[in-house]
Amino acid sequence: MPPTLEALAARLQALEDREAIRELIASYGPLADTGAADALSQLWTEDGRYAVGGMTEAKGRAAIAALIDGAVHRGLMADGCAHALGPVTIDLDGDTATARGYSVVFRADSTGGWTAHRVSANRWHLARTPEGWRVTARENALLDGAEAARALLAAA
Amino acid sequence: MPPTLEALAARLQALEDREAIRELIASYGPLADTGAADALSQLWTEDGRYAVGGMTEAKGRAAIAALIDGAVHRGLMADGCAHALGPVTIDLDGDTATARGYSVVFRADSTGGWTAHRVSANRWHLARTPEGWRVTARENALLDGAEAARALLAAA
Amino acid sequence: MPPTLEALAARLQALEDREAIRELIASYGPLADTGAADALSQLWTEDGRYAVGGMTEAKGRAAIAALIDGAVHRGLMADGCAHALGPVTIDLDGDTATARGYSVVFRADSTGGWTAHRVSANRWHLARTPEGWRVTARENALLDGAEAARALLAAA
Repeated sequence: MPPTLEALAARLQALEDREAIRELIASYGPLADTGAADALSQLWTEDGRYAVGGMTEAKGRAAIAALIDGAVHRGLMADGCAHALGPVTIDLDGDTATARGYSVVFRADSTGGWTAHRVSANRWHLARTPEGWRVTARENALLDGAEAARALLAAA
Repeated sequence: MPPTLEALAARLQALEDREAIRELIASYGPLADTGAADALSQLWTEDGRYAVGGMTEAKGRAAIAALIDGAVHRGLMADGCAHALGPVTIDLDGDTATARGYSVVFRADSTGGWTAHRVSANRWHLARTPEGWRVTARENALLDGAEAARALLAAA
Repeated sequence: MPPTLEALAARLQALEDREAIRELIASYGPLADTGAADALSQLWTEDGRYAVGGMTEAKGRAAIAALIDGAVHRGLMADGCAHALGPVTIDLDGDTATARGYSVVFRADSTGGWTAHRVSANRWHLARTPEGWRVTARENALLDGAEAARALLAAA
């Protein structure tokens, strides 16, 4: 029995959703490292949340943009930095999804090289909105041996 | 001439296969770094093989799980570690596939930062099974200048 | 109203294009780290360009191959190196595309570990050719705090 158009469309939609989520997360680093605070904040929903392990928790787009405009992030950019996010594993569930993966912030040092300044676990909570997939919450924790990071990486 | 349903379904299946393989490999790190030994071992087929460059070779799920439960890996987890696997290049060939890529194990050090403890080449041998794509063998070798790692990265 | 075959085919094509671009970029590292100069140069179009931040600019496949056969690259390979390229964000526009992402060159050092020797921004310009997607230009710049790298990461 050949597949139906409807069945193919549903399978295609699932791949498109995963691709859109991958794209959303892949765009975080370039926005952060160019200091594009407003554009970056719009990866999140209006009331989205970003918990930065060991540092702070920002609620809402204005607070998220303020992280990028803040002294800590601007200091990183002045030194030279890369917010390098790796591939994610994605659990898609209709109009919401969860993605888990690693991020490494490399910072240029005085030797002409770079050091891994932050190595973190990330759990992204995502939702389909009229504007496309957006982040409802990003939970981040340093992989320093503490339980917090492991909790973010664990399967649901 | 418009495409046929059957032709579209075959193209879709190829993309789904690649996505499933990408997902399988992306789930390795989170399972390793949460110490989920049994779940991690089930990424492999029952008689799967995992050759860890410079360390050991595990055959079968129980032996693979034992790596994660072992002292070396538990020591890494206690210090704080990330098994950060990068994107892979995938050669799909019907019901089997090969994927090649890099892995970096970051380890928290005493300075509050992280060091690249292992930087390796990986060659994944994969098979479609009734339970989905599984690893039949992962070959890993340190990128320390020796030929072994280059052999794993070379195209088939 | 059910989707048409033509509409599904177009959506599928867009995903296939993105997958082909991802695959092209993911194959750079393994070709570089195995010293496969000719095969690597064929990721580019015949007159493709590769600007390596802080080093040189190569135009055409022969010049790109020469980078891989050159003393600097061969020295890296002898020490042990990984050209680890992360996920990219892809802007697809018909028969051309742009992709942006990070690359890290890890180099084995004398301590038995690896250092992040180069951490760079990359902007890939791509074109659909009769042989598939190829790189028309790769622009690379070190993330050392200078504006050049930020310009490559900025959205179009």
